[in-house]
Amino acid sequence: MKVFIEPIGRLINEFTKLPGVGSKTAQRYAYKIINMSAAEVEEFADALICAKRDVHYCRICGNFTDGDVCDICQTRDKSVICVVKEPKDVIAMEKIHEYRGVYHVLHGTISPMDNIGPNDIKIKELLARIAEGGVEEVIMATNPDVEGEATAMYVSSLLKPLGVKVTRLAHGIPIGSDLEYTDEMTLSRALADRKPI
Amino acid sequence: MKVFIEPIGRLINEFTKLPGVGSKTAQRYAYKIINMSAAEVEEFADALICAKRDVHYCRICGNFTDGDVCDICQTRDKSVICVVKEPKDVIAMEKIHEYRGVYHVLHGTISPMDNIGPNDIKIKELLARIAEGGVEEVIMATNPDVEGEATAMYVSSLLKPLGVKVTRLAHGIPIGSDLEYTDEMTLSRALADRKPI
Repeated sequence: MKVFIEPIGRLINEFTKLPGVGSKTAQRYAYKIINMSAAEVEEFADALICAKRDVHYCRICGNFTDGDVCDICQTRDKSVICVVKEPKDVIAMEKIHEYRGVYHVLHGTISPMDNIGPNDIKIKELLARIAEGGVEEVIMATNPDVEGEATAMYVSSLLKPLGVKVTRLAHGIPIGSDLEYTDEMTLSRALADRKPI
Repeated sequence: MKVFIEPIGRLINEFTKLPGVGSKTAQRYAYKIINMSAAEVEEFADALICAKRDVHYCRICGNFTDGDVCDICQTRDKSVICVVKEPKDVIAMEKIHEYRGVYHVLHGTISPMDNIGPNDIKIKELLARIAEGGVEEVIMATNPDVEGEATAMYVSSLLKPLGVKVTRLAHGIPIGSDLEYTDEMTLSRALADRKPI
């Protein structure tokens, strides 16, 4: 005899498709759904459908938007472009509430191991934006891993001949952490990039 | 400027209603949904709606079913009833694949602190089932916490005069754990309930 009845088993199966959700967690979620009111569940289902239907990429920067051009592209300083790997990196940057420029989402990083070359990510689109003029600085904010570093280097080699200032987010010891627990690579970068105080 | 666009913010808000899901996890789930195909998202939304619409309580035992009477009540040995707090406890029992009797879900335990008395949980329904006859044993499988123990004691005090054998799941040291890390209450119960080998 199967442990779950069909509608519950099916819902649990759907929840396990979410990142980091195993069968135990999916089961808890499914019971929560069954204990909600019908109106709440319909609201939940509608939010899923609407998010998928209404969210697409901004024509200019590639970030998520529910319009044609995202709010950031419409309202912010276009002389500085922050280049990130994914839309969620835009959220991370926005949460510091300090950056006033616009973004460019690459939708990936160069990774020969995964067969992702420069033409598979939105580098052409970045070059086209710079060709339009008015861009003074490009901040490379790809992740500090092998692919992110390689992509930052590659993109900057394309941009420098165009006379654009290219910068990279600083690497170093995270605020609030401990020297003892900082990995060697980070500590070595922090030492190399040390600043006068 | 708000950090999330409306459809994503709304979906994140829905996900935070799930147990143990904070804003960071909800955000990961929302991005996963947006990266799914439209068909997959519709399937997900439909599973939510169907689970809420089709799942209700078994007329006899109070467990979840998509019919009138659950499969367990229809096919199993009715002379033994295992009394549990919630439908998810039935799943836990079923996973051991050893129990062959039926269940009775109380949908709560007596808890004066939360204003839940004997009339607020399905005790009358249990007594009615026993009054129909044919029940030889009732296994009290409520949780080993204050409310669960109190409920087990109360129910057994009602059942014993009816000539039904009432048992309780054994308490003791969990298999695979360490004496050193076993709490005093558990160890004290394990000592009191020690068995000849």
